[in-house]
Amino acid sequence: MFDIALIGAGRIGRIHAANVAAEQRLRLRYVVDPMAAAAREVADGAGADVATLDAALADPAVKGVIVASATDTHLDYASRAIAAGKGVFCEKPIDLDLARARSAAGALGGADVPLLLGFNRRFDPHFRALEQRLRGGSMGALETLHIISHDPAPPPIDYVRVSGGLFKDMAIHDFDMARWLLGEEPTQVYAAASCLVDPAIGGAGDVDTARIFLRTASGKLCVISNSRRSGYGYDQRIEAFCAGGLVRADNVRETTVEAWRAAGAAADPLQNFFLDRYAAAYRAEMAHFADMLAGAAAPGVGYADGIAALALAEAAGRSAAEGAVVTL
Amino acid sequence: MFDIALIGAGRIGRIHAANVAAEQRLRLRYVVDPMAAAAREVADGAGADVATLDAALADPAVKGVIVASATDTHLDYASRAIAAGKGVFCEKPIDLDLARARSAAGALGGADVPLLLGFNRRFDPHFRALEQRLRGGSMGALETLHIISHDPAPPPIDYVRVSGGLFKDMAIHDFDMARWLLGEEPTQVYAAASCLVDPAIGGAGDVDTARIFLRTASGKLCVISNSRRSGYGYDQRIEAFCAGGLVRADNVRETTVEAWRAAGAAADPLQNFFLDRYAAAYRAEMAHFADMLAGAAAPGVGYADGIAALALAEAAGRSAAEGAVVTL
Amino acid sequence: MFDIALIGAGRIGRIHAANVAAEQRLRLRYVVDPMAAAAREVADGAGADVATLDAALADPAVKGVIVASATDTHLDYASRAIAAGKGVFCEKPIDLDLARARSAAGALGGADVPLLLGFNRRFDPHFRALEQRLRGGSMGALETLHIISHDPAPPPIDYVRVSGGLFKDMAIHDFDMARWLLGEEPTQVYAAASCLVDPAIGGAGDVDTARIFLRTASGKLCVISNSRRSGYGYDQRIEAFCAGGLVRADNVRETTVEAWRAAGAAADPLQNFFLDRYAAAYRAEMAHFADMLAGAAAPGVGYADGIAALALAEAAGRSAAEGAVVTL
Amino acid sequence: MFDIALIGAGRIGRIHAANVAAEQRLRLRYVVDPMAAAAREVADGAGADVATLDAALADPAVKGVIVASATDTHLDYASRAIAAGKGVFCEKPIDLDLARARSAAGALGGADVPLLLGFNRRFDPHFRALEQRLRGGSMGALETLHIISHDPAPPPIDYVRVSGGLFKDMAIHDFDMARWLLGEEPTQVYAAASCLVDPAIGGAGDVDTARIFLRTASGKLCVISNSRRSGYGYDQRIEAFCAGGLVRADNVRETTVEAWRAAGAAADPLQNFFLDRYAAAYRAEMAHFADMLAGAAAPGVGYADGIAALALAEAAGRSAAEGAVVTL
Repeated sequence: MFDIALIGAGRIGRIHAANVAAEQRLRLRYVVDPMAAAAREVADGAGADVATLDAALADPAVKGVIVASATDTHLDYASRAIAAGKGVFCEKPIDLDLARARSAAGALGGADVPLLLGFNRRFDPHFRALEQRLRGGSMGALETLHIISHDPAPPPIDYVRVSGGLFKDMAIHDFDMARWLLGEEPTQVYAAASCLVDPAIGGAGDVDTARIFLRTASGKLCVISNSRRSGYGYDQRIEAFCAGGLVRADNVRETTVEAWRAAGAAADPLQNFFLDRYAAAYRAEMAHFADMLAGAAAPGVGYADGIAALALAEAAGRSAAEGAVVTL
Repeated sequence: MFDIALIGAGRIGRIHAANVAAEQRLRLRYVVDPMAAAAREVADGAGADVATLDAALADPAVKGVIVASATDTHLDYASRAIAAGKGVFCEKPIDLDLARARSAAGALGGADVPLLLGFNRRFDPHFRALEQRLRGGSMGALETLHIISHDPAPPPIDYVRVSGGLFKDMAIHDFDMARWLLGEEPTQVYAAASCLVDPAIGGAGDVDTARIFLRTASGKLCVISNSRRSGYGYDQRIEAFCAGGLVRADNVRETTVEAWRAAGAAADPLQNFFLDRYAAAYRAEMAHFADMLAGAAAPGVGYADGIAALALAEAAGRSAAEGAVVTL
Repeated sequence: MFDIALIGAGRIGRIHAANVAAEQRLRLRYVVDPMAAAAREVADGAGADVATLDAALADPAVKGVIVASATDTHLDYASRAIAAGKGVFCEKPIDLDLARARSAAGALGGADVPLLLGFNRRFDPHFRALEQRLRGGSMGALETLHIISHDPAPPPIDYVRVSGGLFKDMAIHDFDMARWLLGEEPTQVYAAASCLVDPAIGGAGDVDTARIFLRTASGKLCVISNSRRSGYGYDQRIEAFCAGGLVRADNVRETTVEAWRAAGAAADPLQNFFLDRYAAAYRAEMAHFADMLAGAAAPGVGYADGIAALALAEAAGRSAAEGAVVTL
Repeated sequence: MFDIALIGAGRIGRIHAANVAAEQRLRLRYVVDPMAAAAREVADGAGADVATLDAALADPAVKGVIVASATDTHLDYASRAIAAGKGVFCEKPIDLDLARARSAAGALGGADVPLLLGFNRRFDPHFRALEQRLRGGSMGALETLHIISHDPAPPPIDYVRVSGGLFKDMAIHDFDMARWLLGEEPTQVYAAASCLVDPAIGGAGDVDTARIFLRTASGKLCVISNSRRSGYGYDQRIEAFCAGGLVRADNVRETTVEAWRAAGAAADPLQNFFLDRYAAAYRAEMAHFADMLAGAAAPGVGYADGIAALALAEAAGRSAAEGAVVTL
């Protein structure tokens, strides 16, 4: 059983704390957070102690560190934990600044650095099944890809202001999905974006609606659909068009219940919240972290993936601003 | 091209007239109906003449006769047309009285009598595809069958009074489907029925809701679900449980359009009217009649099938009335 | 936090142990099982102690007892735990013998006896959503009900021999669902059964395929479909036909992935194992037990429900054997 | 009843001939085609005469002319028929050359010119239902649109060579759908295209796979997905993302039959052929032409729509060739 230190007792930190508790091979030992009450609450619920980061890193029993603090601390805390010899699970994004992220690649980006980046969708059972179907080869070569990723409703405008913008905050997941599934790096990016959902988002200098095009060197095409508001729940679908047909992963409904009436058949709503939709992904991600600490698996997604997704997000932002195709 | 005489210019007669017009091998020559105006209207629309039954049967150019008149005339007209050497397409049911129907079996029920009985669902493309899947053998032996047949809304009470009752009027189609798909004759019938939709139906001595159970000699089980009112359109589904899995035919919607909202996904309504739902079946039935007149096919469903379905309907009525299983 | 004693460290006992661990208000304190190794393994995994039943019941800190031992011990252990003042969660069925079960009703069946019976399907989120839709009234009065409950594959023949037979072992869940959803007691039962899946099941004096009809005093009709082998996973569906339309709960697939090819669209398989299909139900059931121990809820399903379902199972067995309708 | 002259007895001409026959208000009077045998066959099947174009146009009884000849004759024949005072139904595209098409706009593009352009998808019942849902306003403002239009398999390479290329031959329909549904003219076009399906198509100077992006002045975004080969039938879907949710039209399957097995549920294939998928659209289009001849409707889609779609196709081609956004 591996002792774990959790940095960050906010919403996502609590998810990870619960999944550490449910994962038999992990035990939460320390919670680190400048908000003392939050740290205390999470620690008490798990039988863990509140500690400073230094203290947690100094304990040789701690084998793994989960970095779930504010985005601008990710690089620093991850670097310190790696330097202390811990395995690290770092939430996405690695940073909002591509140059800064690249400058840390020496310490964090090596193939032998035990850093797992929290691109949770790679662990979603639906998307994994799709990916395995593609890898299995029975569908023939992938040709084009369509990723739909629409949020139920926009985040608070205060969050929008510090989020890094739609491309770095929201589409970053989709860039990672695209790279994972295409099996090739995009070489061209074109992004078209509008502010159609809420003028306040435009006022904050951001967009709320986008379509992003990626092309790889071999000519594979990918379209990403993003919206900050669907009006019908969390729309998370992928369609992969292959030489032998289509593989797709559909949305997840709250229940299978339908009501049939004269006006038609009404199905239950889609899952509306990312923590519900990706609950299984978060659990599987933590199990993978345990595998990694046990030496049974290399990190399934790492620092280089974080850099690559961030570079695409930056290119997309540039394309949208300039109205032109960006070549990488 | 075969000349056709149509007996009966009511709703179903008009359907057949239109399908005769659309079938290149058939031409409507005469329309026979005591309601002169109705006969005239149908004849004019098709470039046909109004005639008496005797005159129509006396014309040697007439090769086929469609009996779409009132139920209690089916046996008489079909017998006269057969006696006149015509091929006959006779609407279901052959009669509401099993003893009467059996007494005409000598003239009408022979294997070489060119009589096609209008059990239109055997020609529905969805149910035919299901039947072919069963016959194809890839699913293994059929074990149990579930036929759902719910009308959108009850017929007028005046119709209910003369309909012969739910078992002979409505379930008769399902008994034919059951026999066709089971590939074996039922040997036991149990029917449970209630009047839950409209007390006026009960007042007319009929039921509006039923579940009917059939068992064959080899132990195959079948359940038929009937209701005079679904509230959500025409519910026509079949599920065939086989040793190797399930084959099923689902309902048909008006369009493929769906609206996704916060409350869930709402699909377009089911087709609501039997003439829409079975439009393709009526066309295919007429094409089969043309095949039959051309000597290219034996009747796909004949007099003996009509007797057998009527016998099941009578047994179901007896079972429901007595609350006991009826052995055939 | 309530201390819990678990009686029975077999498959279902382990499920309950895991759900006790995951339920914050419960703590597993003792595991009781004559198989010492099994008891030890479950206890160790949960930080609990192995104990005798007497010792566990004697500990005043123990507030709840989970009876997950062999069926023929349910009545005895539940009675002893109730007598010791504990809240009891007792697995279904309460017993295989209706007379025996009834004889214990004095001690266990009172409205104020804190006994929760493990009819887990009442806690399934899909079926609960369906039930709430029915109760909500927006669909109008329930008229007919169809419960489909087909296992993926038959159990080992040794299990079949001691199971009590299809009606008491498998359909017992469906009888409970029927009573819960109909909101009325059935007054008539007719069951037709065959041995179509495996002759060995017939050799053991049991059946493997059944259709069961229930009718209530007000004329509501219910059909239960059972098969010991579907060939396509765990088929667990309910259709509730109401005056205002249909409410239905469909099957649960492993993932939402589909592959579209020339031959058609192939969806991922159904969940194949009852512990997967009902995992959420088992968790919710344990949360309800915690509510009950906390005094925040009365048992959602109790001893009287167990008796009623067993009486229906016995009547169905009699009906199938005699080929006649049984009036209750 | 209106007499009709049909120019062109090829595949699409025969479809129109059959729909003229089935439309009670229209009668096929002349068939015009330089291929005498083809003209004769179509004329004989409909009781029409073979004629020269001059003769057909000279007959004052002819009220409508259907132009279904080779694309490069559309402008000439349509102009001559309009000049002769006939109502015209002209197949798409109006021409492959935008400048030529624009030069004929004086004669053909007036608001009072009775010319119906054969963009058949506007008459498809599924897409019409979607359009009416959008117009109805219950979904809120349309924000983004996704049109998927993948052919089952590539056309013969000889056809590809003269087709005008993917954008003018295939995407032309989708440009018309986009304009119709967006309710606004696109002002920017970006197209990314590859040759992934068949190198011979690339050898012919064409592409076989494309993603096209459109933006309107108000910021609405549209993506069109095209492929010359799906591998799974005719993929024709539209998703319209609105402020209040999503409206979508899905594909049409051959039947509703599904087979459930251990490997999952397999649905019947999609309709595979455009003449099947759009059979109802072609019928409705001809009924609309009859309405137009009767003075009961203005042309639902006309010359200006043809120009606009062609301009988008040309812009898309330019964008794909230059790898840059084209502003209109």
